[in-house]
Amino acid sequence: MPSNFADRLASACAQRGNPCLVGIDPHIELLPEEFAEVRDARRPRAERARRLGDFCCEVIDVVAGRVPAIKPQSAFFEVFGADGVAAWERVVRAARAADLLVIGDVKRGDIASTASAYATAFLEGTSSADRDTLCDAVTLNPFLGADSISPFVEVCARTGTGLFVLVRTSNKGSADFQRHGSPELSYVIAERVVSWGAPLTGESGWSSVGAVVGATHGSELRRFRECMPRSPFLLPGFGAQGANASDVAHAFVDAGSGRWGGALVNSSRGITFANREAAHRGKPWKDATRDALDAMIRDIRGALSSSR
Amino acid sequence: MPSNFADRLASACAQRGNPCLVGIDPHIELLPEEFAEVRDARRPRAERARRLGDFCCEVIDVVAGRVPAIKPQSAFFEVFGADGVAAWERVVRAARAADLLVIGDVKRGDIASTASAYATAFLEGTSSADRDTLCDAVTLNPFLGADSISPFVEVCARTGTGLFVLVRTSNKGSADFQRHGSPELSYVIAERVVSWGAPLTGESGWSSVGAVVGATHGSELRRFRECMPRSPFLLPGFGAQGANASDVAHAFVDAGSGRWGGALVNSSRGITFANREAAHRGKPWKDATRDALDAMIRDIRGALSSSR
Repeated sequence: MPSNFADRLASACAQRGNPCLVGIDPHIELLPEEFAEVRDARRPRAERARRLGDFCCEVIDVVAGRVPAIKPQSAFFEVFGADGVAAWERVVRAARAADLLVIGDVKRGDIASTASAYATAFLEGTSSADRDTLCDAVTLNPFLGADSISPFVEVCARTGTGLFVLVRTSNKGSADFQRHGSPELSYVIAERVVSWGAPLTGESGWSSVGAVVGATHGSELRRFRECMPRSPFLLPGFGAQGANASDVAHAFVDAGSGRWGGALVNSSRGITFANREAAHRGKPWKDATRDALDAMIRDIRGALSSSR
Repeated sequence: MPSNFADRLASACAQRGNPCLVGIDPHIELLPEEFAEVRDARRPRAERARRLGDFCCEVIDVVAGRVPAIKPQSAFFEVFGADGVAAWERVVRAARAADLLVIGDVKRGDIASTASAYATAFLEGTSSADRDTLCDAVTLNPFLGADSISPFVEVCARTGTGLFVLVRTSNKGSADFQRHGSPELSYVIAERVVSWGAPLTGESGWSSVGAVVGATHGSELRRFRECMPRSPFLLPGFGAQGANASDVAHAFVDAGSGRWGGALVNSSRGITFANREAAHRGKPWKDATRDALDAMIRDIRGALSSSR
């Protein structure tokens, strides 16, 4: 396994033949009926968290072998405190055992000494016993500036892990501050993403410092790609948040021989809670999840081959 | 106990006669020798985390009754994963039992559905059994915009808790993005802090939505205070990061009768690791911590009375 995150990511995408990222956002209100215990406030927290973990591990069973990576969202585990974090660790371990890359959606950001502690928590561990519960990459919030990112970059260099820095998020409120100024703040951050990532460029030509750019900003993706030509993009907002396959195609780079690289398209609720959508109503939830993922893979492949 | 966070905070500051906030940042490398097990990677993680919690609980014993609040930093607990979060919960429980307000320094920030989950995790809980391990307030990163903050504001309104939104952080890198544009981004955020906080104004006249403004920006504190006249300020950067008592005085508002309100001055390493500083070298760590805190309280009181 190559030791550079960007190389591992490129290789996993090539091996699975698609750039789809399954977001694991276990909203307790949305879990299938089989997991109703999770919502039952009278049950012990440890039991509720364990069932939350059971659900996520079953999602992993469904998606393993089909996609290169998953993206668990920390908040939905943290609702159950220490028990929830134990479930997170179990889910990360299961994903790694299933040969899925794990991108921890933690969006941390803090001053340098604290940033170092977060990098230890998610990417490096405090002992070799932590290895199986670490992430391959995490999402980061850059609001605190360069000195809040560099401790992570150092850890990535030592451990072959990666980062996805928030550049433009997928939500409506992203315009409030991320578009402030001229040039807009997102473009100032994009420039920094390039410089932070340059020392972490792999043999694939991609950097291990990527960018989160909402797929909902279809028309701007091309411009972000021009600013950050070697940064992998993590594109949230596909599906439930409204972006479609042709929106995201602009983020990809033609790698020749019909292959495309440089981006991961995330769908969370659209996959894990597919049974709640009209197209899959009445199906057992795992069938709905499998069918929704197959449809997503088909859509993205279709959009990429037609944008050649 | 008043149900509005700002009122509880004002009352706690009046009762203790000072606005000092003790930051609990248990860097594993800096813990006193008595807690060397925390650094020993051969020991089980649960044991290391338990000793980390022991240290923090002893700090609480030293500072209880002297200051209105503590601010534990989540990252230093998260290094030990689920075991670390169990230690965090124990520390929060101990602080609340000791009648200290708890400001969780978590700096979360995410899209609305995820922000709701973080608000549940830290401020509301999923059942009544969580009550003793919840925070009175948390720090938030506003980079994702208004829709990332409003789920927290709703939870604060329901639960009488509070927020401190990052406006200008204390680190050097804060200039990178927070000063972008004209007006600088921090001032745009400051305006929003005022509007988010208006519905949460207490009987004290203060809002439960406060702002984090680095004490290291002494000359600008007055301007931030003009922009956010009713927002409590959390001022990091005192002591180890270089700000002194006269720097922070600009953030306070004269409440008459020799009383001052509207800000909390944080010191973390300068208090909890005071035994590492020249002024206290050779003292047992608890004596160093107690003496450093007494000196800080004296300094801040002195600066406030001379700035009258």
